[in-house]
Amino acid sequence: MGPAATADFLSKLTKVTAVECDQDHLASVVCCFPDIPDRTEAILSNGPSPLPFMLRSLALLKRSGANRVVIPCNTAHHWFDELQRETDVPIIHIVDAVQHALAARGVQDCVGLLATSATVRSGIYTRRLEQYGTHCISPSDDEQACVMNVIRAIKAGRGHDRMVSQSICSVVGALVGRGARTVILACTELPLVMQSDDQILLDSTEALACECLRTSRNQLR
Amino acid sequence: MGPAATADFLSKLTKVTAVECDQDHLASVVCCFPDIPDRTEAILSNGPSPLPFMLRSLALLKRSGANRVVIPCNTAHHWFDELQRETDVPIIHIVDAVQHALAARGVQDCVGLLATSATVRSGIYTRRLEQYGTHCISPSDDEQACVMNVIRAIKAGRGHDRMVSQSICSVVGALVGRGARTVILACTELPLVMQSDDQILLDSTEALACECLRTSRNQLR
Repeated sequence: MGPAATADFLSKLTKVTAVECDQDHLASVVCCFPDIPDRTEAILSNGPSPLPFMLRSLALLKRSGANRVVIPCNTAHHWFDELQRETDVPIIHIVDAVQHALAARGVQDCVGLLATSATVRSGIYTRRLEQYGTHCISPSDDEQACVMNVIRAIKAGRGHDRMVSQSICSVVGALVGRGARTVILACTELPLVMQSDDQILLDSTEALACECLRTSRNQLR
Repeated sequence: MGPAATADFLSKLTKVTAVECDQDHLASVVCCFPDIPDRTEAILSNGPSPLPFMLRSLALLKRSGANRVVIPCNTAHHWFDELQRETDVPIIHIVDAVQHALAARGVQDCVGLLATSATVRSGIYTRRLEQYGTHCISPSDDEQACVMNVIRAIKAGRGHDRMVSQSICSVVGALVGRGARTVILACTELPLVMQSDDQILLDSTEALACECLRTSRNQLR
């Protein structure tokens, strides 16, 4: 969805793959149509739906021979069931990928969410992680407004301003203070400016890349 | 061709585009089929030709609605004329992109080449840049063997070893010592471990991304 986040996913897919030469990598076809309506606007403000655009991409991916699909945009998973219903190609759910990464770290009880307001409000993470017994802590309204400012700044190419890193760090601190053992970068724009550190932060883009590898014949690095 | 180089191109395409939101970015479809036969083997050792695989990708890109094509692999430009002959979609030649970047820097006389042995031997750069009055200096046989070792190390995920950066620096030094005013990273694997610095090094991947923007309605950052 976000082109920089899409490039980041492709880059992480190559980084997590154990290879000796090009030919050891997974094949992929990437559809990056940035003119798709904003996902957050569609969910929160009744803006135009991105679903028809996603269905067009899904059809193109199927025609190109893809045998599974990933969507490196958390908010777009609001339409996951409608997309999966339209195709027999399995779509890997990003929250399942994150849950596997959490399990690998031994964290199952309580996590914090850094995500778009639409991802938070539509319960994409909350509902799916609760099925695994994991409780999600969301930012307060003020903290969430700050997260959205950061996401918009990253999308506009201003993600490396000091203001951005300072304000997101204070939200991470607040979530940990309220009991989060891991804070999920649950918007794929955030890992563009924040490093997953195997301690507090968990990168949903990297989790999706690992899950993609795990479901293939290729080896994780 | 190399999946990490492809991801790097997509990332640079987003970075050089002046945007305020996702919707300002170029749309793209990326075909990344790493099982394509090695380009260097095909040119230097009569290995299997990658051309039929590239033609398959080209057909897929045309069907997806692409109105121009870029190939973020310098060596693959050995087959440029055969590819362009098969489609009415314009393919942007990476050496033309590099030439525009050289002209923007005011360098037109003498450049050094860091490339695969196949790119060097097949004269992809030498012939095309001489049309613009630019002379190319290639590494000696020993230096070229070193460049190939570095490219293989990068493809195998060992590009950040100290040995790699040291050995490539000495080749850069040798080319500058023989009169190169700019050294072109003319293999898209090299920018994965070397930063273009606007002084000596010129990144062919970034030049291709800029050229892609220049031929579109979108604005360069």
